[in-house]
Amino acid sequence: MAINSESGQNVLRIGMAGLGTVAQGLLTLLNQNAERITRQAGMPIEVVRIASRSRKPEIDIGDAVFDSDLESLLDDDVDVVVELIGGVDSARELISSALRQGKPIVTANKAVLASHGNDWFNGSAVLGIEASVAGGIPIMSTLKNGLSGNSVDWLVGIINGTCNYILTAMDEQGSSFTDALAKAQELGYAEADPGFDVDGVDAAQKLSLLAALAFDIPITLDDTYIEGISGVTVEDLRYARELGFRIRHVGVARRNGEKFETRVHPALISATDLIGDVSGVANAVIVGANAVGLILLVGPGAGGLPTASAVLGDLIEIARGTYSRMRIGQNEGARLPIVATESRYYLNIPAADRPGVFGEIGDILRQSGISMEGVIQKQAAVRQTDGEPWVPIVMVTGRAVEASMDDALDRLSSLESVRGRVRRIRVADFDY
Amino acid sequence: MAINSESGQNVLRIGMAGLGTVAQGLLTLLNQNAERITRQAGMPIEVVRIASRSRKPEIDIGDAVFDSDLESLLDDDVDVVVELIGGVDSARELISSALRQGKPIVTANKAVLASHGNDWFNGSAVLGIEASVAGGIPIMSTLKNGLSGNSVDWLVGIINGTCNYILTAMDEQGSSFTDALAKAQELGYAEADPGFDVDGVDAAQKLSLLAALAFDIPITLDDTYIEGISGVTVEDLRYARELGFRIRHVGVARRNGEKFETRVHPALISATDLIGDVSGVANAVIVGANAVGLILLVGPGAGGLPTASAVLGDLIEIARGTYSRMRIGQNEGARLPIVATESRYYLNIPAADRPGVFGEIGDILRQSGISMEGVIQKQAAVRQTDGEPWVPIVMVTGRAVEASMDDALDRLSSLESVRGRVRRIRVADFDY
Repeated sequence: MAINSESGQNVLRIGMAGLGTVAQGLLTLLNQNAERITRQAGMPIEVVRIASRSRKPEIDIGDAVFDSDLESLLDDDVDVVVELIGGVDSARELISSALRQGKPIVTANKAVLASHGNDWFNGSAVLGIEASVAGGIPIMSTLKNGLSGNSVDWLVGIINGTCNYILTAMDEQGSSFTDALAKAQELGYAEADPGFDVDGVDAAQKLSLLAALAFDIPITLDDTYIEGISGVTVEDLRYARELGFRIRHVGVARRNGEKFETRVHPALISATDLIGDVSGVANAVIVGANAVGLILLVGPGAGGLPTASAVLGDLIEIARGTYSRMRIGQNEGARLPIVATESRYYLNIPAADRPGVFGEIGDILRQSGISMEGVIQKQAAVRQTDGEPWVPIVMVTGRAVEASMDDALDRLSSLESVRGRVRRIRVADFDY
Repeated sequence: MAINSESGQNVLRIGMAGLGTVAQGLLTLLNQNAERITRQAGMPIEVVRIASRSRKPEIDIGDAVFDSDLESLLDDDVDVVVELIGGVDSARELISSALRQGKPIVTANKAVLASHGNDWFNGSAVLGIEASVAGGIPIMSTLKNGLSGNSVDWLVGIINGTCNYILTAMDEQGSSFTDALAKAQELGYAEADPGFDVDGVDAAQKLSLLAALAFDIPITLDDTYIEGISGVTVEDLRYARELGFRIRHVGVARRNGEKFETRVHPALISATDLIGDVSGVANAVIVGANAVGLILLVGPGAGGLPTASAVLGDLIEIARGTYSRMRIGQNEGARLPIVATESRYYLNIPAADRPGVFGEIGDILRQSGISMEGVIQKQAAVRQTDGEPWVPIVMVTGRAVEASMDDALDRLSSLESVRGRVRRIRVADFDY
């Protein structure tokens, strides 16, 4: 930290990479909340350098020196680097260089942490990561500090705002996936290329970080099951409601014997669980741990100001000299493949509308040891394909190992009376 | 920290005051989660001394030295004191002595912090307080770290599990207050003398601490409005549901111009707000702040293990050398008296069952500038007192200053057609 020549005070001097939404949010907060920040940090926090490829003239950067060269942020006149450029390659180089020099760096970039975090976490320089997962929700510090004396059993997170917005819109307004996605793009909640979000990759990267902190295991996407939301229909959402559930896109990380499950997929959540009511672009994480029991955190998962709030929390801790290091990778963290995990399942089976079909389906499930807990079969829902009447048989099953369910679905699909793809969505139960 | 002579390792040596539920929870966790704790703290954490008035022989205290003298905890062989005796006088002496010696101390005691915290918070020795409010929910560290760069606008907390249990039981099972209280006592959720909880004093003490961290103001109960739940009836809960609300006992701290509102009372919460669904002994705090927007934390507000989890989080931060100090009392923190606050209100008016009465009531409210947003008046609800038929007129009003409402209620009560006490419950709106 430098002594400010004018005031004679200590100042925490920030070098910021990027000048997008979060970076602008950080500049706004440093200005607007300056008094509170100075008091909390014990010194003012000032952005003295900004490196970005381009700079919109309307953005007020105060007295900061602007440069297009990221390396300028490693100069001696910068105390802490803040990485807000996103992407992997340049960010990785910047973070590596900063840490090599022993310069603290704060990042909101889950992609680079998910791919290279293992090299960085246990070093001696400070790496601030609160903003990398779930925006303004203090889930990383809750895992590394508040729950540090707990053995965490599992966590379930709604950690992709785009998916949650789309599923909520489909559920509440009956919009199709395509329409809800278009609306999300219009509102800036989804990228022009939405695959990263709706296919579950973004959530999987965040889950890999949450799991690492929760279980002291290495960060990896290997053996993580990843499924997006494009297969969920408005019909599924409606039937789920009727059965007492909502459908949300979740990340699940769970201790299972000596191994860990990490999986990202749409899931039915009981309407009586608070997390099932988390709607729109909000994020939420529920953690089950052996001392605290259950805790739930809900808040904005993205956006300039909320994400900047998390960056700023890290910067204030660094100024105070109390940023707490996380230790990860002490446990091996072998993953349990998805076929070995156990869930209840929602099934939607397009079945010929004639006597005996329900019995055939029931037999196959029974032979695989799968019970039926709730079934909906509505005569009013009869449809025609090629002149043949069929009806969706919808149910929630009892708990079953995924491999048994795969096997049962194979056998169901080969039935002459089953008239198309069986849709299957896992149920997320919190009393695992 | 001492070097353990056997292992040659650093050890954090704890001196623990008290041997009740939380203390036993802490002993259990230190034992059960020893490996995780040692890894997270960077050293083992061991209870080396316990001071308590009595000791049940069945409690395993390991190698700890037992003493009935609290002063023994200040010996050089103790690195950190953990105060779990509750009450004010002895706890105050212990905390003061420890801090005077520069010895870190962790406490779960909101009562002593509410009355003497101002003397202690800004000193140089560490005072760990996470466990003092809302048990296992990391709300204190969220306020002092995660939200440290935010200007907090308000917070609303369900911070007394006893009240929440009783109101939930009344709501869901239709139990009377008396029956629900008796059940809470039977389950150990309420004390034999329940006044401290059901009259709102416990919640007010916790609120004074939350407000201090949120707004950098001194801790005080002065000018805090305190109302318990004994005036809430099953009928109120039922009408509130019909109007789209739940009733919960809340603490509200809110910035209002240069002043602050701090108030504890039953409140209607919209059924669409997540916090309205927090039931049983759970606690929840929702914070509105200018960077993050809204965040909500939910979890167990009491109990041996959850509270010990919070104590342990503080101890691990102390072992790491990264326990973050809070700074409070930088703002003056003058309170706005309850009569100057503004709310919507639920009113339950016992009115004579004859034409024109509703008009009289409406006139009085209108003259005080109070609008009616939702009204329930059921002919089926007609009752008789002394042969005179009357009916409850139930409504939610628009926003009004409390003084105007007081005035309107005085005038309503003096109407010949109003047949008893008008019940009034504030509405907690989160979009203030």
